[in-house]
Amino acid sequence: MFTRVQVVGHGRLGSAVNARLAERGLLATASDSPELVILCVPDRAIHDVAQGIGRGPWVAHMSGAVPLSALSPHTQRFGVHPLQTFKVGGGAEQFDGASGAVTGESEAAHERGRWLAASLNLQPFDLAEDKRVLYHAGATMASNFLVTLYRASRQLVEAAGVPANGLLPLMQRTIDNGFELTGPIARGDWATVDAHLSAICEAAPELEQLYRAMARATRP
Amino acid sequence: MFTRVQVVGHGRLGSAVNARLAERGLLATASDSPELVILCVPDRAIHDVAQGIGRGPWVAHMSGAVPLSALSPHTQRFGVHPLQTFKVGGGAEQFDGASGAVTGESEAAHERGRWLAASLNLQPFDLAEDKRVLYHAGATMASNFLVTLYRASRQLVEAAGVPANGLLPLMQRTIDNGFELTGPIARGDWATVDAHLSAICEAAPELEQLYRAMARATRP
Repeated sequence: MFTRVQVVGHGRLGSAVNARLAERGLLATASDSPELVILCVPDRAIHDVAQGIGRGPWVAHMSGAVPLSALSPHTQRFGVHPLQTFKVGGGAEQFDGASGAVTGESEAAHERGRWLAASLNLQPFDLAEDKRVLYHAGATMASNFLVTLYRASRQLVEAAGVPANGLLPLMQRTIDNGFELTGPIARGDWATVDAHLSAICEAAPELEQLYRAMARATRP
Repeated sequence: MFTRVQVVGHGRLGSAVNARLAERGLLATASDSPELVILCVPDRAIHDVAQGIGRGPWVAHMSGAVPLSALSPHTQRFGVHPLQTFKVGGGAEQFDGASGAVTGESEAAHERGRWLAASLNLQPFDLAEDKRVLYHAGATMASNFLVTLYRASRQLVEAAGVPANGLLPLMQRTIDNGFELTGPIARGDWATVDAHLSAICEAAPELEQLYRAMARATRP
């Protein structure tokens, strides 16, 4: 579909996009005029960078929550958001096994978005423009708040004087068991939940609201 | 150390304990008098069951938060809590790779607790009696609230009309990347956090407090 693609931005995501497209021989050279320009710049910079791109090529961004209108004045545009977290210095293999949200305002845009997702080795799925923020909130919960949950849990376990490395097999098994709920709340054991809260208020009061909100949301 | 062990309770945990001790030839037969009785009964039943056991053998429980005094009148007692989640119908292999908290009130009790942990193939660590509840609160966060986080995240993603199976590679990579924080909060992008909250209030208001508490705890 495209054979000359230009990637703008070389942060965590941009570097990985560049690496995968290079592997597949899809990058435009410096002397080519690109058929597709992909913006891998910070969300708040997308609109400014898009305005600086000459008319002609298709333009895409890879943000989760930013609307496609940020790519104006370009109208041949689409978005592909990898449902994945990227690390500094990681390569193209970071796309493998992940899926990617494709948003477009026409069938032509959708087709090109699905092509880009597939070219990156992302399993494509369609995401409606007016659902981007809701989708991104869910993705943020699953990844960023998982970090927070681990840190809070580690803080409590270490405050109890025990090594935190045992939390990893526990979290991994919780996932491998299909997120089946066990433990005090599943057993309706509110005395233990109250005891947890007392211990947290004493040892780590800054985690009380987090525990309360999670316990409330866990209740069947 | 012990060669005739009796397990009371055959739920998720008791069945796995029984299976592992059977593998190792450590179970008492019906005609034996046991040297160690392990209570794998619900937390609230531990005290009553302990009272019904004749004096003589060592008595242990495998609860996270219940104090050792619940094993009274027995004084030769200890606790081993596997830092793991167990499923119905799972076997002894569920202990492999996990660690176990050992609590005792004497060196003799600690030794026996470490023996039981090792016999189950749990990596033993010592847990102070007065830190049990704090430790258990951390373990509950890591496992039970991980289930809640996944469910909430799935709810938002599905409300956005997209398949939730893409969340799994995202969560797995978040763990594999050592729980490095990425995303809007790591970037200080509070406009996106506010947009998430608006979208959640509209589509799933019951998750607003959860999102707020997690976002607050995620802030550097």
